[in-house]
Amino acid sequence: MPSVTLKMIAKELSLSVATVSKALANSYEISEGTKSIVMEAARKMGYIANPYASSLRKRRSKTVAVVIPEIADSFFAKVINGIEEVALFYGYHVLIYMTHESLSREQAIMQDFRSGRVDGILMSVSEETNTVDHIQAVMDSSTPIVFFDRVRDELPTTCVVTNDFESSYEATAHLIAKGCQKIAFVGNSPNLAIHRNRESGYKAALKNHQVDYENVLICGNDQTNDYTILSSLFKSSERPDGVILSVEKLIPLLYQVCHDLNIKIPGNLKVLTFTNLAMAEFLNPPLTTINQPAYDIGKVAAQTLFKKLARSNHITEAESIVLPSEIIFRESST
Amino acid sequence: MPSVTLKMIAKELSLSVATVSKALANSYEISEGTKSIVMEAARKMGYIANPYASSLRKRRSKTVAVVIPEIADSFFAKVINGIEEVALFYGYHVLIYMTHESLSREQAIMQDFRSGRVDGILMSVSEETNTVDHIQAVMDSSTPIVFFDRVRDELPTTCVVTNDFESSYEATAHLIAKGCQKIAFVGNSPNLAIHRNRESGYKAALKNHQVDYENVLICGNDQTNDYTILSSLFKSSERPDGVILSVEKLIPLLYQVCHDLNIKIPGNLKVLTFTNLAMAEFLNPPLTTINQPAYDIGKVAAQTLFKKLARSNHITEAESIVLPSEIIFRESST
Repeated sequence: MPSVTLKMIAKELSLSVATVSKALANSYEISEGTKSIVMEAARKMGYIANPYASSLRKRRSKTVAVVIPEIADSFFAKVINGIEEVALFYGYHVLIYMTHESLSREQAIMQDFRSGRVDGILMSVSEETNTVDHIQAVMDSSTPIVFFDRVRDELPTTCVVTNDFESSYEATAHLIAKGCQKIAFVGNSPNLAIHRNRESGYKAALKNHQVDYENVLICGNDQTNDYTILSSLFKSSERPDGVILSVEKLIPLLYQVCHDLNIKIPGNLKVLTFTNLAMAEFLNPPLTTINQPAYDIGKVAAQTLFKKLARSNHITEAESIVLPSEIIFRESST
Repeated sequence: MPSVTLKMIAKELSLSVATVSKALANSYEISEGTKSIVMEAARKMGYIANPYASSLRKRRSKTVAVVIPEIADSFFAKVINGIEEVALFYGYHVLIYMTHESLSREQAIMQDFRSGRVDGILMSVSEETNTVDHIQAVMDSSTPIVFFDRVRDELPTTCVVTNDFESSYEATAHLIAKGCQKIAFVGNSPNLAIHRNRESGYKAALKNHQVDYENVLICGNDQTNDYTILSSLFKSSERPDGVILSVEKLIPLLYQVCHDLNIKIPGNLKVLTFTNLAMAEFLNPPLTTINQPAYDIGKVAAQTLFKKLARSNHITEAESIVLPSEIIFRESST
């Protein structure tokens, strides 16, 4: 089969070669609609983009791995969709590995990569990850890695993240503006930058607004235990009037605890959550959410990885790409 | 490292060898609690179960693939967790491939498998899949495949499914008992047995209860188009007073349409959905759901695949394993 050229795509779509070229290069001169049409046609026709073409064709496995804590999460699901769009465009397979928040599983997966099973890796570390030797070993074997969302500070990595500090600051300030004076922050991954940035944003907002009450809770992966932690919080004499959830999977649990203890949201408790859940609007009450740009994080991370794959050396510069989140205000925090 | 034996596990846990052996064989004589403890210890210690041990050790890739339409779905997310529990136990990696409901992507993935990239495959076909040559070719190359949830009738396959006909019948009868006389059924995959079984269950219940109104709608993957289909349905003179959704991702869309058209659930419309969504209870109103045994489907499918992997020939007998679903009644259908 002959290689598909820009000219062939242009002819197929009755567009100029220049338009097709710019669309594939994601140029601001081309509308999003046209970009989609061109990308879709290029994909269907099996086009492989230059200047990566020859370099990518030489690659052995034509596979990139995505290493994530879990998939039952609206954020990771959307990130993967963004990654897949880019990978398909380059004719690559995407393999998904889950760590289930376990360091030992993450280590076993990274061990597997040292045999060259995949050409490149997109990764969000587990909450248990407090050492980086297993990651460093893969980086040393010259398999490029791009991190997204969750990263360890001590690695000189390329990472795509969102503005967690600012979002958390803004969320906390919003609850204070709505009258909250006792705001709790509930997270699950104190080892990770993502958690620390959100916690720092929360604390900075409290400080700047002279709010004394400060309460950071760590919930784990155990439903029963988490239920106890949350219900103890709301039964205590110092119970909060606002809560910021940093973990999507705790949403049903929090709604359950409030239901069981007859705590009205937002009357007795204002709630705000980091999540990309499509259902947030239809919960009872509708949930204020910090929506991360999950799809774009996946896309940008993958584009960055393919740039690395097209280079002959894989020296990693420390580079951080920040895409902003957006708060969607709904009844739960009003 | 010496192979881990049953004796070593028994010693570690202060249990008898017989108990450990029975627990690992999933015997009814052993409690679920003990089974979990034994399985967990066996996994941590790196035990590989006999009689599969030698056969599995010979396998090259130590990898099984899971081919699914998408992961942003509570059903598939839970199935994968079930699969992973079994795979980890046998020291296998799980790779996840998504077809995004596209036949051509499914064909490309199956083509990739013919090179022996994976030892075995667990698969749920895409809604576009109306031919099976690409699947048959992989089966002919003696890579074993076990299907779950979505399967093509014309293949002599092993599949793990739930009782879709019965669940759909029961759901329809429930709506009729609640006074509905115009029940619509909304699905997205008329090519697939899963859709046809649910549609047949719906129609059989209407017939047996002498209800004349019958309305099957097919929604696709396009949000805007689906919105139009659903809102046209509710604006028509023959608008339904009950609806059975066969597709989880349509839930927020249905709630949105009802909100926009000022249709009250359950007052004007009773709603019931096939889904495993943890949030169903906290939606406004709480949603009646048909919960599929997703985790168990994944576990049983994986166990069946590992049995095949341990055999030297991979002749596929047509075999169907049916695990029952459960309807959880909530306000949306009362």
